[in-house]
Amino acid sequence: MTTARFEHRRTTLRRQVEKRLAAIIHDSEPRDLTDATRYVLSAPGKRVRAMLVLLSCEAVGGKLSAALDAATAIEMLHNFTLVHDDVMDNAPSRRGRPTVHTKWDVNNAILVGDVILGLAYAALLKSGNRNISRAMKIFTDAYVEVCVGQAFDMEFERRQRITPREYFRMISSKTGELIAASAELGAVLGNGTPAQTAALRKFGAHIGRAFQIQDDLLDVVAQEKELGKRIGGDILSRKKTFLLVHAYKRTRGQSARRLKALMAAPPRPMSPGKEQQMVREVTAIYKASGVLDAARREIVRETAAGMRALRTLRPGTARAMLEWMSAMLVQRTY
Amino acid sequence: MTTARFEHRRTTLRRQVEKRLAAIIHDSEPRDLTDATRYVLSAPGKRVRAMLVLLSCEAVGGKLSAALDAATAIEMLHNFTLVHDDVMDNAPSRRGRPTVHTKWDVNNAILVGDVILGLAYAALLKSGNRNISRAMKIFTDAYVEVCVGQAFDMEFERRQRITPREYFRMISSKTGELIAASAELGAVLGNGTPAQTAALRKFGAHIGRAFQIQDDLLDVVAQEKELGKRIGGDILSRKKTFLLVHAYKRTRGQSARRLKALMAAPPRPMSPGKEQQMVREVTAIYKASGVLDAARREIVRETAAGMRALRTLRPGTARAMLEWMSAMLVQRTY
Repeated sequence: MTTARFEHRRTTLRRQVEKRLAAIIHDSEPRDLTDATRYVLSAPGKRVRAMLVLLSCEAVGGKLSAALDAATAIEMLHNFTLVHDDVMDNAPSRRGRPTVHTKWDVNNAILVGDVILGLAYAALLKSGNRNISRAMKIFTDAYVEVCVGQAFDMEFERRQRITPREYFRMISSKTGELIAASAELGAVLGNGTPAQTAALRKFGAHIGRAFQIQDDLLDVVAQEKELGKRIGGDILSRKKTFLLVHAYKRTRGQSARRLKALMAAPPRPMSPGKEQQMVREVTAIYKASGVLDAARREIVRETAAGMRALRTLRPGTARAMLEWMSAMLVQRTY
Repeated sequence: MTTARFEHRRTTLRRQVEKRLAAIIHDSEPRDLTDATRYVLSAPGKRVRAMLVLLSCEAVGGKLSAALDAATAIEMLHNFTLVHDDVMDNAPSRRGRPTVHTKWDVNNAILVGDVILGLAYAALLKSGNRNISRAMKIFTDAYVEVCVGQAFDMEFERRQRITPREYFRMISSKTGELIAASAELGAVLGNGTPAQTAALRKFGAHIGRAFQIQDDLLDVVAQEKELGKRIGGDILSRKKTFLLVHAYKRTRGQSARRLKALMAAPPRPMSPGKEQQMVREVTAIYKASGVLDAARREIVRETAAGMRALRTLRPGTARAMLEWMSAMLVQRTY
């Protein structure tokens, strides 16, 4: 298949998911809850997790219709985590738009997250697939694991040093698990064999980690306008990203002391000028220590491992699209 | 059955649920999440909703074991709403102990609520009952409806006047729905007939509203130590309770103007002395307008309607216990 056909297919699938997302919200009282729910679910996005559900279902020979409700549900679960994470991270914007707690308030953001999760379960239950109990379990386990990952992330923000191993554990829970579950869910709903299901789950776990490391990298190397949020946001909030965790290991002497001094202090309000300077300085240390390249290598390594897992699947359009999507994600700039 | 035997049976059932709640939490990382989850699930409580699941299952001839996981799940769903509601209401204490966001922080409270909900779904899924899909739907619909009720509650806090009809709608969603779902869930898992299931659901909806109006009443008439939270908290936060909504309708002239002046202003920090005075003054208006008695009458009316719904069920121990529990709830002082 050509890139143009991949793109076309991706757009078709995304539109189907977005049509379902739009259908979930009816005009009803109470206003704030409904408006904010619609605001979240209609936000522009790549719908990566929904795509993975659909393509994984097709990759094991299942029908698209068997996985559409689950794809919608996974996308909603993901959006629920974004709304609550943004509150916890005090993030002002997401995808170029104000976050829910900025546009409304924290209370509405908590509640909107909660209701989106409930509607996600409702969507999943609607599917009526014969493997629904298993699907519910995968979905629920992933949901709990994402919470655990977020708890690690918050705990790490209060700690000075995090080992690469701890970082790996955190992103596996926080990002890897949901992407792995998306692929697994598609396989289960498409009635895949145990071997196919395991392969797709493994693929998802690798791609998920690659995705998160790419996210960490983009915080430093992306263009603000394209990214839809502030460059260096992770640096300013002292997030324990791949870059920081590895920079601690790779720097010595003056740079190491400077990095520690900059990143050890808890986040505090600074003037925009001071913030820019801090981001510039930390970015320079990252570059000099080689962690940007290390991140790029790790992304490629995880993506390649993911692709290897796919090789056990029957070749075909869906598998080719999963490969194409993985390659796209590695190269994404937002 | 004698009261002593009812009490004994209630204690036995409660312990079974609490044993399951305790088993859900393992000692694991991350610390804050695990500690706070245990803190919430081990809080002293009446476990009313769990009791309703278990007794409703028995009332239709089901085995207790068929409903134990669901009873645990419902209790967790309820606790999830408490943790998030306490954040939204900025409540300092609950059941005589600091709330999660007071003891830890808001971020941990959001996340602990989220994870408890996930663990609730996991508990429900574990049951392996043949009616599990239906149970999941009842559980999910109730969960979404509770969010809608909470959204109404928050919206009402910003509005000046709420009609009794709007109040009824709000408490039906916020409190009635979960109690109705508890009874329905027990009936479904106990393999009740459609008529039995409908009767138990109806019973729960009535009892749920009675329970909420009692809650509103206790804010004014309870003893602080017994209630485990501050007396007059609803008054200070200008909550649209049964008492306030009906007091607006029942007062005229000077009292009406005074009530409006006191309750129209948004909540703001006041000295403890001023707060006490405000609570005393509003309570006096409530008493003079007869809304305390109106609340008591409404509680009895709803409870009686609930008991009537039970009459279609086969007489027996479980039905007798449901009746006894309803009577207990009407008379509760905390």
